[in-house]
Amino acid sequence: MGNDETRRKIMDATFEALKKHGYADLSIKKIADEFEKGKSLIYYHFDDKEDLMLNFLDHIQDQIRSGLESESSEPEEKLECFLRTGLGLDEEMREFRIALLEMKARAPYSAEFREKFREIDDELSGFLRQILEEMGIEDPEEESQVVLSTIEGAANRGIVAERTGELEEARKWIKGYLEER
Amino acid sequence: MGNDETRRKIMDATFEALKKHGYADLSIKKIADEFEKGKSLIYYHFDDKEDLMLNFLDHIQDQIRSGLESESSEPEEKLECFLRTGLGLDEEMREFRIALLEMKARAPYSAEFREKFREIDDELSGFLRQILEEMGIEDPEEESQVVLSTIEGAANRGIVAERTGELEEARKWIKGYLEER
Repeated sequence: MGNDETRRKIMDATFEALKKHGYADLSIKKIADEFEKGKSLIYYHFDDKEDLMLNFLDHIQDQIRSGLESESSEPEEKLECFLRTGLGLDEEMREFRIALLEMKARAPYSAEFREKFREIDDELSGFLRQILEEMGIEDPEEESQVVLSTIEGAANRGIVAERTGELEEARKWIKGYLEER
Repeated sequence: MGNDETRRKIMDATFEALKKHGYADLSIKKIADEFEKGKSLIYYHFDDKEDLMLNFLDHIQDQIRSGLESESSEPEEKLECFLRTGLGLDEEMREFRIALLEMKARAPYSAEFREKFREIDDELSGFLRQILEEMGIEDPEEESQVVLSTIEGAANRGIVAERTGELEEARKWIKGYLEER
């Protein structure tokens, strides 16, 4: 197994472990439990949990980029996919969003985390802006920022205050709102 | 000093300590440091940090309620105040929002935290709906949910991804959006 493949498998294991245990309770041991090769190989590639998590956030960014670039469908379909993923409407994404919220709560105390989240935020707004451009929206820059904030807020309210009904409402509202632009 | 006054002073000290240290690093000791009477009086009123925090979230809810009820100004002024506070446009609110984000990240692991945040969410959306009704907005229920999600998302992006410019953008967008309803 080459280095790239090993790292990719560690990232997959990290994703599974995050969904199961959340961020605060995550350990290299728990990631290794999701990974056929064991702890020592993880330590060969990463210094500690912090280092692994920063690399994991890079991995998330790559995933967003390639997931979005590989889409050759209509902008309306891309938007639908973006909303479902962003709002965590599917159970797997919801679990992942919970772990992500814990990592976000650490950002004010870590310049490295903030920088990664800033890059991810750039990636997401850039991708959304591109969809809105393709849809012929008048001010794609402003609208992409509003839509991204609404997705982020509705997803968090869904998790934190169990406002799960709001997720579907937000999806409908965003689509209706963009149709009028 | 009566019990009610003592509890109120402990809540003020908790607010100060949260802004200084964040939630993860908060301890009864650090709250006592903000409070003239010391640790033992805090333990007389609260079992532990968790119990104190749940009471603190009740206190936040009361603050929202009384802050909003005491306002006798025009709905436009109430909205302005709601937006500034919700978005954390003032430095004090920004610090408090950082600590609140940490508490929110714990909600998926605590039914009691989720319930409190649900009550606070109800309080906020109810108050906002009332402002929008007074402003003559057509569908105050739906619009209050959208606006609340946008505030929540923009405030979090401001903290997590240092998108502080988005706070002012969100404020302007919300006002413009509501003027058209």
